[in-house]
Order: sequence, then structure tokens, then C-alpha cells
Amino acid sequence: MASDLLVALLDGTLVPADRPLLRADDAGVTRGDGCFETTLAVAGVPRDLPEHLARLQLSADLLDLVLPGPEDWTRGVDAVLGARQGADQVVRLIATRGPEGGIPTCYVTGGPVPASSVAQRTAGIRVALLERAVSGADAARMPWLLFGAKTLSYAMNMGALRWAAARGLDDVLFVGSDGAVLEGPRSSVVALLEDDTGPVLCTPPADGILDGITVRRLLGAADAAGLATSRRLLTVADLQAAQGVWLTSSVRLLAPVTELDGSPLVDGGWTPRLAALLEVPA
Amino acid sequence: MASDLLVALLDGTLVPADRPLLRADDAGVTRGDGCFETTLAVAGVPRDLPEHLARLQLSADLLDLVLPGPEDWTRGVDAVLGARQGADQVVRLIATRGPEGGIPTCYVTGGPVPASSVAQRTAGIRVALLERAVSGADAARMPWLLFGAKTLSYAMNMGALRWAAARGLDDVLFVGSDGAVLEGPRSSVVALLEDDTGPVLCTPPADGILDGITVRRLLGAADAAGLATSRRLLTVADLQAAQGVWLTSSVRLLAPVTELDGSPLVDGGWTPRLAALLEVPA
Repeated sequence: MASDLLVALLDGTLVPADRPLLRADDAGVTRGDGCFETTLAVAGVPRDLPEHLARLQLSADLLDLVLPGPEDWTRGVDAVLGARQGADQVVRLIATRGPEGGIPTCYVTGGPVPASSVAQRTAGIRVALLERAVSGADAARMPWLLFGAKTLSYAMNMGALRWAAARGLDDVLFVGSDGAVLEGPRSSVVALLEDDTGPVLCTPPADGILDGITVRRLLGAADAAGLATSRRLLTVADLQAAQGVWLTSSVRLLAPVTELDGSPLVDGGWTPRLAALLEVPA
Repeated sequence: MASDLLVALLDGTLVPADRPLLRADDAGVTRGDGCFETTLAVAGVPRDLPEHLARLQLSADLLDLVLPGPEDWTRGVDAVLGARQGADQVVRLIATRGPEGGIPTCYVTGGPVPASSVAQRTAGIRVALLERAVSGADAARMPWLLFGAKTLSYAMNMGALRWAAARGLDDVLFVGSDGAVLEGPRSSVVALLEDDTGPVLCTPPADGILDGITVRRLLGAADAAGLATSRRLLTVADLQAAQGVWLTSSVRLLAPVTELDGSPLVDGGWTPRLAALLEVPA
């Protein structure tokens, strides 16, 4: 909603959200040429900001894009947080290649947390499986495809989400050409499998997919709490046999998958325990 | 260049190119969510405008985007053409999903024709082969991947072109997982093959790739002139054995490939004949 949106430049200036900011020839518009990050501020404090700034830099490197440094981005983030002190917000960092012959357009936005994202943390989500026709290994050895970068070219991701929504589903999980599960359009996938040694919290290797910050945090916290973790190729059969499957992301944080490709999934009571590890706000 | 750019809204108003036009939360920026067309105006007359308007509508349909009709777009195009009467221009039609809860942002730009594009029509281009890891058939049965739509999410295409430029090359040709040649990041591929019955001008089937307007026009003109044409799967070996290989697109029109993946290609003197069929301006 326009009136709920805050927009800050990297010098810390807030600009009216309804005032146009980008030129008609900005490559961010004409080519989806740029990168972004999204995180959640809880009670005015952004989660994992250093990790998001590092990944923004990684995306910029993959795009050959020279961006302002972390201190500049932090100034923009602080402006958005300061304007709504102590509030929960979705904070977005956006960088485009800029207009023809110009410099990158960089800004930060703040907006309300969607109620649906909060509700899905407990209610769970019904998920479609969609082929992406590229395996993680293929994507990793084809850097020009930019699968590891969080670029502004999200039309395919949004198309997949619309495809699911048109069928009454909440989200999507992409499957590669080798049958291995990859990631969601805006999320990572986690499954709790039963190994010979006990339960193991698993996520696919970060090859040819986005290196999810929330899933990294979850696995780190699980390790520290004595729950075994593993990065391994996961098949659809693995997910169907799992004690639970979740999609993780920076705003929704952790959502249990209650239905995958039309089949119900259990969650074995693990959702609150993983949410606690991830410090999901109550 | 900013000063050379014209920007028109669909009501026919010209707006200053250096005045920002898009909001910070426009999905065209934040998600590369929208579609576009590019064509060439020669001496003030746009080439293939009805075909570009039809493809814009097709892309919008694939994106579930409701756009203004052809008469509105034509008003914007006329404004750009009228401001520079009789000139050659690159004319771009751009539509985004618009800001959160808003309506699509639609506009037309006019700008100079890059000298490099004109030069490459005769000098030819050195082309890299890059895998795209998806075959045309796979892409066609996965509509959520939007390969048939000309979306604003072109970061991957621009990444491939940067990959080639960093190696001193001019362009790229994508190859699918089945070894068949697909398309360039901003062009279609045409090859003149020698069949038992004589020379045949070939291009891949339009499955899972963009349905190129210039290549369609070229094949139509060739048919009319008595040169056999065919849509068929083409391998890299087919191209290496061809009497000539060209990339076609709306601005550069027809560029002979002089080198493919490091190996020189002949053109058998066909470039001027095909350029005449395509009515390439001298």
C-alpha cells in the first residue's frame, strides 16, 4: 500500500513513496538488471543485516555492478527503521544498474509485514512442485544464468507463484532436471529426515540456488543445539518420507509444508522447536 | 544517453527523460515484472509495429497482466516519432505491473540507433556458445518459466552478453540441454543449410524461445522469393556446416556470424541477399 511504504536514499533522506524515483531508462526497469535483499525488522531491529549486506555484495559481484558500501546501505536502513521506531517491518535493499550511462540507483524501503506471512508460520502452506529444468549442478557451472544471484529479474519466480495461486496453493518448490529438489521462488527448503543415527535437518547444497540466509541460520542454531544437520541432495521421495518439511525465508521465516503436490505431509510437532531455534517472534 | 532519450506516456504526452517516472515499489523494478518490445523506426516509420503490439499482448497474457490496447500504445509511439520526424530511432514499448495495489506503468521511449548495431550488419559478429540447460521442448511445457514471454527480467540475458564481451566477443547463442541451438539473448538464429533439394533457410521451432518477429519476416520474404525455408532443430554441427549463419533482431536486423565458439564461419555471399529480403536500410 502506497501510504504504508517508506522510501529512503542511502544518504539517509526519506522521500515520499508516491514520488517517482526511477527514470524510464533505468536498467533496473528495462532489463531487471540489478539486485536486492529483503529482511525482517522485529521491534525495530533488522534480522541478519550483515549477512544480507554480504549477499547483496555477492549478487553485485556476479552482476559486475559496483555498489555503495555497507555503511551507506546501513544509513538507508536506519532511516527507514528510525521513521517507525520499534515497529516490525519488511525492509528491502534495492540496487539497479541505473539509467544509460549513469550510476546505480540504490534505495531502501520499509513496509508492513504481510498478515498472510505471519499466519503461514503456524497454519502452514500447500505447495506445488514445479520443474525448473536445470539441476543445481548445471546451474552452478553456468554462472551466466545468475542462479546464485538475487537479481531483480524475478518474473519467472513470480510466474511460478501465480501458477500456484491460480490452483489455490500457497507456494512452489522447484525440482531440477535430475529430480533433486532445489528451492522455492522466494524460499529455501528444509526437511527433517531420519538417518540411522537419528533425526537430521537437511537442506540442498547451495549450488545453483540462492544461498538462503534464514536456512543457514536455522542449520547453525540446530547444530549448536545438538540437532544433526546436513546439506545433501533431496528427492521428492525424501520429502514425502520426512518427519517434516519447511520453507524458510527472511520475512515468513519458517512455514511448515502441510501439502506437497497434492499429498498431505506431517510435521511431527517439530515446527515450534525449529521456530524457537530460529527465534521466530511469537 | 539521457539527452537523446525521448519518453512518451500513452496519452501522447512527452515527459523529460531525466524526470523520474517509476515509483520505488513498482514491480517492474522490484521484480522485473512486466514486458516490453523494441523496434526500429526507419526514416520515422516503425518496422512491424502491429507484430510487436501483438507480441506485447502475448507477453502480457503470459504474465496475467491487463494492458492498454494497441491504439493507446500507438499514441505513445506516434508522440516519440513525431518529436523526431523522419529520424531513425530505437523505439521501446515498456509495461510494468506497477506499484503495489496500483495499475501498470506503461510508456514508450525513443533513442538513437547504436552505431555498433549498424556496423555489425556488414562487419559481422563473433559469437560465443553458452549452455542454457533447458531444451526448447522442456521450456515449452513449463510455461511458468516464461521463456516465450518478452519479460523485463533480462538479467540473465545481459549476464550472458557481459560474459561474451569480457572475452572480446560480440554476442551469444544459447544451446539447450538436448544440444539443439535455441536463440541469442536478444536475437533469433538463422542458418542456410544445403538440403538434397538445394539451399534452405532454417531457424529453430518457436517452442520455448521467443517467437522472433524479424526472423518470421525474413522467412516469409524468403518463401515469397522462392528460397526454401524450414523450422527445424539445429545442432552446432549444422551451423558449422552451413553456408551462412545470422542472428536476427529488431534493431540490428541481420548480422552475419563470422566466428562461432572460436571457429570461423563463411557466409557464402548471402548476407546482402538476405538483407535485401529483410529490407535492411543501406
